[in-house]
Amino acid sequence: MTVRAQKVWEEVDTVAGYITYINLVRPLIGDKTVVSTGMRQEIDRCREVVKLALDGHSVALVSSGDAGIYGMAGILIECLQEAGCLDLPLEIIPGVTAANAAASQLGAPLMHDFAVISLSDLLTPLEVILKRARLAAEGDFVLAIYNPKSKGRQGQIEEIRKLLLEIRSPETPVGIVREALRGELPQVTISTLEEFTRLPIDMLTTVIIGSSQTRVIGSYMVTPRGYIL
Amino acid sequence: MTVRAQKVWEEVDTVAGYITYINLVRPLIGDKTVVSTGMRQEIDRCREVVKLALDGHSVALVSSGDAGIYGMAGILIECLQEAGCLDLPLEIIPGVTAANAAASQLGAPLMHDFAVISLSDLLTPLEVILKRARLAAEGDFVLAIYNPKSKGRQGQIEEIRKLLLEIRSPETPVGIVREALRGELPQVTISTLEEFTRLPIDMLTTVIIGSSQTRVIGSYMVTPRGYIL
Repeated sequence: MTVRAQKVWEEVDTVAGYITYINLVRPLIGDKTVVSTGMRQEIDRCREVVKLALDGHSVALVSSGDAGIYGMAGILIECLQEAGCLDLPLEIIPGVTAANAAASQLGAPLMHDFAVISLSDLLTPLEVILKRARLAAEGDFVLAIYNPKSKGRQGQIEEIRKLLLEIRSPETPVGIVREALRGELPQVTISTLEEFTRLPIDMLTTVIIGSSQTRVIGSYMVTPRGYIL
Repeated sequence: MTVRAQKVWEEVDTVAGYITYINLVRPLIGDKTVVSTGMRQEIDRCREVVKLALDGHSVALVSSGDAGIYGMAGILIECLQEAGCLDLPLEIIPGVTAANAAASQLGAPLMHDFAVISLSDLLTPLEVILKRARLAAEGDFVLAIYNPKSKGRQGQIEEIRKLLLEIRSPETPVGIVREALRGELPQVTISTLEEFTRLPIDMLTTVIIGSSQTRVIGSYMVTPRGYIL
């Protein structure tokens, strides 16, 4: 969490967000009014925040990781537009997104150009996701994969693996980090493109697939930037 | 800056890094020993840190943005390997990288899949950089461009623009953010793919080029995630 995110609670009277994320910051928010909603109620949540702001409240909308990376920032701006109040003051506080948090646990896999892809097909057709993964692989980007699996969606990560095996070595390092930096000890594993889908992967996991340059150095996964030692 | 980064100084006796970055954290580091080096001395800097650690010092190596994104984390691990001391304790503290910081100033341009590309050709051949930009454009990724220009390197960003114009609309929003969140007021401009290279861009600038879905909403640049309002 950033210092700014830790201090913003002093400036608001209401805290809104998905209940799981609210609970993560509960020690910081004191006795502020809490407006919590369930999963997959993003639009309702943002409309409620806009309504509260129009009623004169100062509201913090909690988002996990970085609110600007697959988070709440975009939908909130769309809801401000919908309500015709784009002139309401808005501060978007950047944060440490899962790719960065996972990378820090693995070593330094994102030292060179990388692509961030979400495998959630709730809002994006699967063929678009797979096309992106193929092009990123052809460009030798390191891949940071968000939402690799959910309860109803298990097969995509295996499709990504097969597709990448056509382009990259089966020995390519793959880092798997679960619950990166959320308080609990993160579960960190370095595997290979050949093997990694045999490991436990769920919706709280971030998967980082190395480029052709990525290697394992001791217990670290590193994509060298190209300095000659 | 993260809360962890703000507190780590209490646990070290020495602070190392590029002098400009050291100066940014000087109010935090008190009377610790400072070992500063100039630009482009990354390897020397890391070797010095390894030497100090082997001598029993606890050292903080300062990196701007996120140490794991084009920062010092990778080269430090390589230097630990070189010195045969990969077993020294190392904590990599993730941070807010320039893409995330710039995005927060622009609105929410990174709400969907994106690719991060550095235009610095000091360590990467230009043809690799251009190939990556083309593939990322074909995949309709939002592009976050690091190091768009330096004193000796002015033309690449224009090449990127021309290449993207073959694939994307000239009206595609492009965000330009200088010195994002480094204390001074950042300079934030939203332009278009057609026009953006006419604006001032330098090595402290981050450029975010929208995907086909990115649009300007009020004063914000937003890549909608696809929710239907």
